[in-house]
Amino acid sequence: MNALASDLVRQTSELSASVTRPIPGSRKIHVSGNRADLRVPMREIVLEDTPTASGVERNAPFTVYDTSGPYTDPGYAVDLAAGLPALRARWIAERGDTEALADFTSPFTRRHAIARELDSVRFPALPKPRRAKAGANVTQMHYARRGLITPEMEYIATRENLLHAGRAEQGGNQRIEAHLLAQHPGESFGAAIPKIITPEFVRDEVARGRAIIPNNINHPESEPMIIGRNFLVKINANIGNSAVSSSIAEEVEKMVWSIRWGGDTVMDLSTGKNIHETREWIIRNSPVPIGTVPIYQALEKVGGVAEDLTWELFRDTLIEQAEQGVDYFTIHAGVRLPFIPLTAKRVTGIVSRGGSIMAKWCLSHHRESFLYERFEEICEIMKAYDVAFSLGDGLRPGSIADANDAAQFAELDTLGELTQIAWKHDVQTMIEGPGHVPMHLIKENMERQLRVCGEAPFYTLGPLTTDIAPGYDHITSAIGAAMIGWFGTAMLCYVTPKEHLGLPNKQDVRDGIIAYKIAAHASDLAKGHPGAQARDNALSKARFEFRWQDQFNLGLDPEKAQEFHDETLPKDAHKSAHFCSMCGPKFCSMKITQDVRDYAAQHGVADEAEALAEGMAAKAREFREQGGELYR
Amino acid sequence: MNALASDLVRQTSELSASVTRPIPGSRKIHVSGNRADLRVPMREIVLEDTPTASGVERNAPFTVYDTSGPYTDPGYAVDLAAGLPALRARWIAERGDTEALADFTSPFTRRHAIARELDSVRFPALPKPRRAKAGANVTQMHYARRGLITPEMEYIATRENLLHAGRAEQGGNQRIEAHLLAQHPGESFGAAIPKIITPEFVRDEVARGRAIIPNNINHPESEPMIIGRNFLVKINANIGNSAVSSSIAEEVEKMVWSIRWGGDTVMDLSTGKNIHETREWIIRNSPVPIGTVPIYQALEKVGGVAEDLTWELFRDTLIEQAEQGVDYFTIHAGVRLPFIPLTAKRVTGIVSRGGSIMAKWCLSHHRESFLYERFEEICEIMKAYDVAFSLGDGLRPGSIADANDAAQFAELDTLGELTQIAWKHDVQTMIEGPGHVPMHLIKENMERQLRVCGEAPFYTLGPLTTDIAPGYDHITSAIGAAMIGWFGTAMLCYVTPKEHLGLPNKQDVRDGIIAYKIAAHASDLAKGHPGAQARDNALSKARFEFRWQDQFNLGLDPEKAQEFHDETLPKDAHKSAHFCSMCGPKFCSMKITQDVRDYAAQHGVADEAEALAEGMAAKAREFREQGGELYR
Repeated sequence: MNALASDLVRQTSELSASVTRPIPGSRKIHVSGNRADLRVPMREIVLEDTPTASGVERNAPFTVYDTSGPYTDPGYAVDLAAGLPALRARWIAERGDTEALADFTSPFTRRHAIARELDSVRFPALPKPRRAKAGANVTQMHYARRGLITPEMEYIATRENLLHAGRAEQGGNQRIEAHLLAQHPGESFGAAIPKIITPEFVRDEVARGRAIIPNNINHPESEPMIIGRNFLVKINANIGNSAVSSSIAEEVEKMVWSIRWGGDTVMDLSTGKNIHETREWIIRNSPVPIGTVPIYQALEKVGGVAEDLTWELFRDTLIEQAEQGVDYFTIHAGVRLPFIPLTAKRVTGIVSRGGSIMAKWCLSHHRESFLYERFEEICEIMKAYDVAFSLGDGLRPGSIADANDAAQFAELDTLGELTQIAWKHDVQTMIEGPGHVPMHLIKENMERQLRVCGEAPFYTLGPLTTDIAPGYDHITSAIGAAMIGWFGTAMLCYVTPKEHLGLPNKQDVRDGIIAYKIAAHASDLAKGHPGAQARDNALSKARFEFRWQDQFNLGLDPEKAQEFHDETLPKDAHKSAHFCSMCGPKFCSMKITQDVRDYAAQHGVADEAEALAEGMAAKAREFREQGGELYR
Repeated sequence: MNALASDLVRQTSELSASVTRPIPGSRKIHVSGNRADLRVPMREIVLEDTPTASGVERNAPFTVYDTSGPYTDPGYAVDLAAGLPALRARWIAERGDTEALADFTSPFTRRHAIARELDSVRFPALPKPRRAKAGANVTQMHYARRGLITPEMEYIATRENLLHAGRAEQGGNQRIEAHLLAQHPGESFGAAIPKIITPEFVRDEVARGRAIIPNNINHPESEPMIIGRNFLVKINANIGNSAVSSSIAEEVEKMVWSIRWGGDTVMDLSTGKNIHETREWIIRNSPVPIGTVPIYQALEKVGGVAEDLTWELFRDTLIEQAEQGVDYFTIHAGVRLPFIPLTAKRVTGIVSRGGSIMAKWCLSHHRESFLYERFEEICEIMKAYDVAFSLGDGLRPGSIADANDAAQFAELDTLGELTQIAWKHDVQTMIEGPGHVPMHLIKENMERQLRVCGEAPFYTLGPLTTDIAPGYDHITSAIGAAMIGWFGTAMLCYVTPKEHLGLPNKQDVRDGIIAYKIAAHASDLAKGHPGAQARDNALSKARFEFRWQDQFNLGLDPEKAQEFHDETLPKDAHKSAHFCSMCGPKFCSMKITQDVRDYAAQHGVADEAEALAEGMAAKAREFREQGGELYR
């Protein structure tokens, strides 16, 4: 490594404090599974006691799903130049169906590994790539279909289950849970979410193709997670440099920032220079699955001239990225030649970058897409590394006017056809979805996707429910995302406020992710995900009891909540005040409610009144006199 | 007026430039109706031409509904101490059923009108109050039921209709509209929205109680608007000082700021000092209906001791505010004594301020609510001034756990009962709704409200679809608001990012309003509101054609859109660039689409391909060879 390279390493090794500062009121914990090396990370939020007339009620700590990796663990020494520990390495090796290669398969990668001019940007200690042994299939779907429960599946069961188990004990919820038991089950639109997630359930869902575990064998640093509609709804955050853009250090920092706020996967959509090297740094340091759109890099390799793309070049790009450890590939194999003219009368034509590249290639060669024609060959590559398909929606609508049109659904039907081919090879597959869709047309998207794609997980971008709010598309799309998540979408691709306008900065990424965590959680609630409501209950209990700090810390963004609160009532004393700035002490409804409760308890009237009030509403008038005497 | 008073007037007369600066690319226009004095304000957005191969395509100006009043008209000289012109004064007088009173009816108001210590805060030229002549009923509902089409109804028909008429001509939409004709009608859940809104339709909806026109005869400055589910979905913004808070000047400025961004009505929720005088300034200067919660002021009059409230004091407060010109009153008459114990086991008890005040009163007196018992007397006051009821949901859920519970629905049923009483008096009535409700329980709220309240307009706060995002409740609630608006809610009460945390500042108000304009418009689209999609189409056409400035100006917040765009590509040249910062020129899908269109047009293949592709998706495989030869 020369001097320049050391410079970069030093520079890159220094994440700014803003992305690693501790999350208020929380600590990292690890939950053990069946194996000693299976330690599932969680974030534990410590809560205050509630003072009561008869002493204090203890509020047990509340544990939440944690995507942030070791970066939020103050005991972990970040060393980006070394990368994260390879926690899955032994599991992969133990299966005995892969081998370490002496060198990279892709000639492109081999050239980059030795080019002197790349010394300053290359990841210092490139690991040797692994590949399936000849004839072996190393996908989680393949194992699942053979009845094998992998450590990855065990890990996921533990990870998802903590939120499923009812969690009456968490956050002081015991009293609440008893009261709410079995009240208002959600609507699951055909999903079948069990009370307890077992490793066997994970295996079965993966075997059926209803869920995927994106875990390339060359990304052993990843903490296993699952995408499927019978699990928690996940979100994806996009990062990536472009012509106008940023350094490698910035891209790694963006990834760490994204997972801090709750990104479950990260897509690297870089199109600028050094994208091979940037990706290496990101993957080596990412605890979440990384997705890419390989056609972007392929196009860079032919100088941006879509017509010059070839199958051979694309194939080499797939292998290049598979050996780096990319966990899922967006491949726009459904953009077929005969569908392209269907877009000619659209208001916004083709808005997918990958889709438009392939459309241009098809048109200029007067030929069917090589992605479609070579699909089985692509499957062969995917299964040698366990890269999952994210079948791209290259013809998704880019405006309300184009929603659910012939082009979009022709492509979706083709994606269903391709899913069957992928499954024939036991290749894990999810399906990408729109885009811009008004509310009344959202359900049709989900129902059609489930039907024609055999229930493969759906992964949608929004959808945006109106076109008229540039600058606020995290909101236009969070509305659609929450709805389609409820209907069964397994992962939501975030949209930032900068959508359609510019490249997101850190604040935009944070805003986009929080909007999507809201959408995903609202979906989980509406689906009746067992345990999902525990966090709402714990937070609302804290709010009602004026435990301000707990209210902030149980929220999706404790820092923002505290900052907003402090704007009007900055003094520390107010954090324990039994009123707030909105109403002041005289108008405090929560204080009055406490009086109501005390009164009811004192006079033992609650149950009597409840009985009386049953069915009372319809004939409320009759009760006027009776009501007046209720408490005598 | 003494020196102090002049100071205040001068101070108050100076709205900051930030609330009156022109809206980019727009000008105020007026559309005339049947009467010379009926001039309906609109905002016209001027658009650029589209360059085409055969010259230029002209994009006709796009006209949008305008709530901002004269403040955004550069030709209007703002004089807050004089108030706005009384545009409805003649219409009210002409009906001959009202009379100007010699003095205010309320002793409280009379004391305030002469108190020397209030000289410095009093509105300078208090107008004489009007009241119905003895025995007359002056509500728009009363007129409607007698078959009378008022100028207010004519005004509304013109105002709503501009958006209904298909608007093929607007924003260069002609080509698009032809293509989209009759595609994807929305889902209206029993609503019946006509293609053209006629004055007779307005009258009929008001007569049936399905819509209200909140227009107190003492607020002749107001520009008539309608709230009902067969019209555009409206939004309300809350302002108001509190113990901690702001000057009169600030409150007036907040009102002007709210309507600038699209607030259709404004509620003054002040609880601090000088609330009578603050309200006077607000009403005299407000072109939109003003709502209040009279119990707040009543409570101030008894020093904040709920038990000391009396019917007589409350009655005087109603008359005081009715003679100032408040257009609708939130009255929590559904919080009945027997329902209160139903809240005892809730996670968050009673969260409505008005609800909790009344609950405390009922409990401490062991008596039925005087609001419920005196409801017919309240109706007598309402119909003498045409104040509309907004029947408050004092028992709305304050957390996901409490949604759709017995307390909430007992109160809703009572509000239905009260609606029938109000309608017996021809008093206009809307019903307030929750609150915190997970997505799968939203529809039940709407359906039950329509059923038990005889289709009276629903006016909901959100609902928030999860409790776990303090700091982002404009988003948690915009999701619920969009959905319930689609299902039939007529007006959405905004929620700002500061909800639960503190008092909103100007930025929070803007963020809350835009989030709710998004929700309302998404609802209009999903309901299939004729013409609603025209703005989406015009904006998307501008986006596709890289008319950056038009894209910004057609959006809900042109300033924010431009600011975001300029962050990454600040140079003016880029406003006409045919690419953007996100993809750069090589990856521009919109540019490639243009190539597709040109190719299709050149080879005349679009129609042939469309025919071929019909039904192709299912048997896509067969087409592989055929596809390859499609363009030969």
